[in-house]
Amino acid sequence: MRTFLAPCMRQVHELMGGWMRAAGMEVRVDAVGNLRGVLSGAETGAPRLLIGSHLDTVADAGAYDGVLGVVMGVALCEEIAARRQVSREQMPFAIEVVGFSEEEGVRFAKPFLGSLALIGEMDEAILACADANGTSVVQAIRDFGLEPSQLAAVALDPSTFAYVEFHIEQGPVLEAESAALAVVDAVAGQTRATLAFTGHANHAGTTPMGRLRHDALAAAAAWITEVERYASGIAGLVATVGKLDIPSAAGNVIPGRVVATLDVRHAQDAVRAAGVDHLVAFAETAAASRGVTLSSTITLDQPAVPMDSTLTRALSDCVTGISGGPARVLTSGAGHDAMILARRVPSAMVFLRSPGGLSHHPDETVLVEDVEAALSCGLEFLSRLRDDKAMLDPLVHNARTYGQHRLAEARHA
Amino acid sequence: MRTFLAPCMRQVHELMGGWMRAAGMEVRVDAVGNLRGVLSGAETGAPRLLIGSHLDTVADAGAYDGVLGVVMGVALCEEIAARRQVSREQMPFAIEVVGFSEEEGVRFAKPFLGSLALIGEMDEAILACADANGTSVVQAIRDFGLEPSQLAAVALDPSTFAYVEFHIEQGPVLEAESAALAVVDAVAGQTRATLAFTGHANHAGTTPMGRLRHDALAAAAAWITEVERYASGIAGLVATVGKLDIPSAAGNVIPGRVVATLDVRHAQDAVRAAGVDHLVAFAETAAASRGVTLSSTITLDQPAVPMDSTLTRALSDCVTGISGGPARVLTSGAGHDAMILARRVPSAMVFLRSPGGLSHHPDETVLVEDVEAALSCGLEFLSRLRDDKAMLDPLVHNARTYGQHRLAEARHA
Repeated sequence: MRTFLAPCMRQVHELMGGWMRAAGMEVRVDAVGNLRGVLSGAETGAPRLLIGSHLDTVADAGAYDGVLGVVMGVALCEEIAARRQVSREQMPFAIEVVGFSEEEGVRFAKPFLGSLALIGEMDEAILACADANGTSVVQAIRDFGLEPSQLAAVALDPSTFAYVEFHIEQGPVLEAESAALAVVDAVAGQTRATLAFTGHANHAGTTPMGRLRHDALAAAAAWITEVERYASGIAGLVATVGKLDIPSAAGNVIPGRVVATLDVRHAQDAVRAAGVDHLVAFAETAAASRGVTLSSTITLDQPAVPMDSTLTRALSDCVTGISGGPARVLTSGAGHDAMILARRVPSAMVFLRSPGGLSHHPDETVLVEDVEAALSCGLEFLSRLRDDKAMLDPLVHNARTYGQHRLAEARHA
Repeated sequence: MRTFLAPCMRQVHELMGGWMRAAGMEVRVDAVGNLRGVLSGAETGAPRLLIGSHLDTVADAGAYDGVLGVVMGVALCEEIAARRQVSREQMPFAIEVVGFSEEEGVRFAKPFLGSLALIGEMDEAILACADANGTSVVQAIRDFGLEPSQLAAVALDPSTFAYVEFHIEQGPVLEAESAALAVVDAVAGQTRATLAFTGHANHAGTTPMGRLRHDALAAAAAWITEVERYASGIAGLVATVGKLDIPSAAGNVIPGRVVATLDVRHAQDAVRAAGVDHLVAFAETAAASRGVTLSSTITLDQPAVPMDSTLTRALSDCVTGISGGPARVLTSGAGHDAMILARRVPSAMVFLRSPGGLSHHPDETVLVEDVEAALSCGLEFLSRLRDDKAMLDPLVHNARTYGQHRLAEARHA
């Protein structure tokens, strides 16, 4: 398992750092263990495009979640460097490839350590988090031979004008639609809630149906059926009851209490909020009609993060150019580093089809032809950025204020 | 906790045996620990009426479940004996009060040990059952100072013509209807089943609603809703999903597998069987429509046991005489010793209202006026048996063949 600064992370740094150097990139491992390689642009101080994803994995993981996006960045730089060798042509921007040290949150139950450090949000509370062995983040940094005092130097180069991330879809949609690639319009906002139904445990044989029965599971089941029905009727909404506990359950006892989780996601916060309101209200009604009481707690309310429309439109055009049809646009139901980076820099994502919809599983895979399509898309995107000053200049111009603006917003929130 | 032949059972034998002796009854503890007291009839060899219930309890039990029915029997004998003192009047039948040593099945996970021994069905397999400490039933009998070789002598006296049991309702119906007593028409038949829904665990955020989602819990919830709806529409049917397990459940994972229990009870086996068939078929459909597979296993299929109609009619008349209104007739949703005795002797039951519907709980209680009503009912019933030769004679006549006939049936089954 490749967790935050686990010893095996050194091998990744060596192997991938070697590829970067071979492509003429300047390589370093920053103070939180992000692997960073820069392919210089035409001029010193040229604006900088960031391409990346994460190097860490969950337990029992597949081979592509995260690391594929880093390899994609390196491969694109190799190609640019190779063309430069031939044509002496220079790019009007530098490319920095970043392999984030941590995204999954496995070691410290706290995800996005690598990208949070990049946007300057690695605070004291995060540094003090302890892993299962009691080792803090700051100690883990020291144990790996890195220097916590250098954390400030992790921050994004101020010339960075965009972030692009390639990632496997981790879902079944592209496969179902026989499409190789999709561009991401937003990382969905997410509500997590706990709903507790409290009825009255009673003898399953001696308590008749009807008003003398206060079955917490029957109430919860009616609600779960509505969760499925309601979400199915609203485009892009997903709603899931993943856990359901019945304390002291027995086959011959009417469930007196049920505690269930609810997970609701959508690209638009208003749609998600309306969904959560409806589903909690429905649970109240389903409970009340059975003499069951409901209590609900929102445990997470995370707004949607839209991807940058200029970048997304450009990437869509590139996908269309390759596939011949309109690019599939997906909302990411899972969180990604791009969601963190978007706070400071215009960001975009491209998804690669996940055969079987599998991820976080050893059988996770990608198709070779989809990786080829993604590389073509990436190269075409780089060419457009190079050639289309009407796209590049406003991006570079806006980026100068974007980060400061968003950071101020975040501080006010 | 008063389990099978637990040391504290001696105190019950002493206390209640003392009351029996004081009423002029002949008392013994039989070889399985049943407390038995006989109040003789007018003549030696007079037919014998059995009145009883069980002395054992579950863990954290109330004070009335079982033992109240034994105390009722003793109290009725006390009254008959007291009247005899005054009037010298003799009854044309003997009364045997039995306090069964075991009904709940706590110690050996095998219920009805006391009543099974009475009908001669305490076989080698039961005697070999071990408790949590590895002590067998036969060893427990020895440890209590009883003699397993005397098991044959536990059997019902051949002159026994009827069994009557008073028991708390353990349900909320009588309280809801403001009635003190009910007569029982049957002990409900019972089906228990396990239904396993197997779908596909997947990311709750990246898997859209609809045909790409194979949510085992959504399928189970639709089915649980139907279990409640269907049973509510059929008089006397109860159906309950008491347990529901989701292996490896997580709030952000679509449940890939759900294992649920089903408990269905009704006084008529055909109604119960049709219910089980419908509910399993519905589960198949609810599963299939979500790309989920279903497997179901029937773990218990126990037929209903009707109570004797002559006894039940007579007891109903007695209840009507006390309450002034028609007697409430209930189906017992729980098993009782009367269900076992009915295999060998015409049997009947009277329920006393359970305030709050509570049982198997320290707050379990009965109302003093309901116990008075039950005693009046019992005395009236004894008077009718004494006075109405047209009722007693056929009962006594039929009982001679009933036991043998039923036993032969049981052996063929």
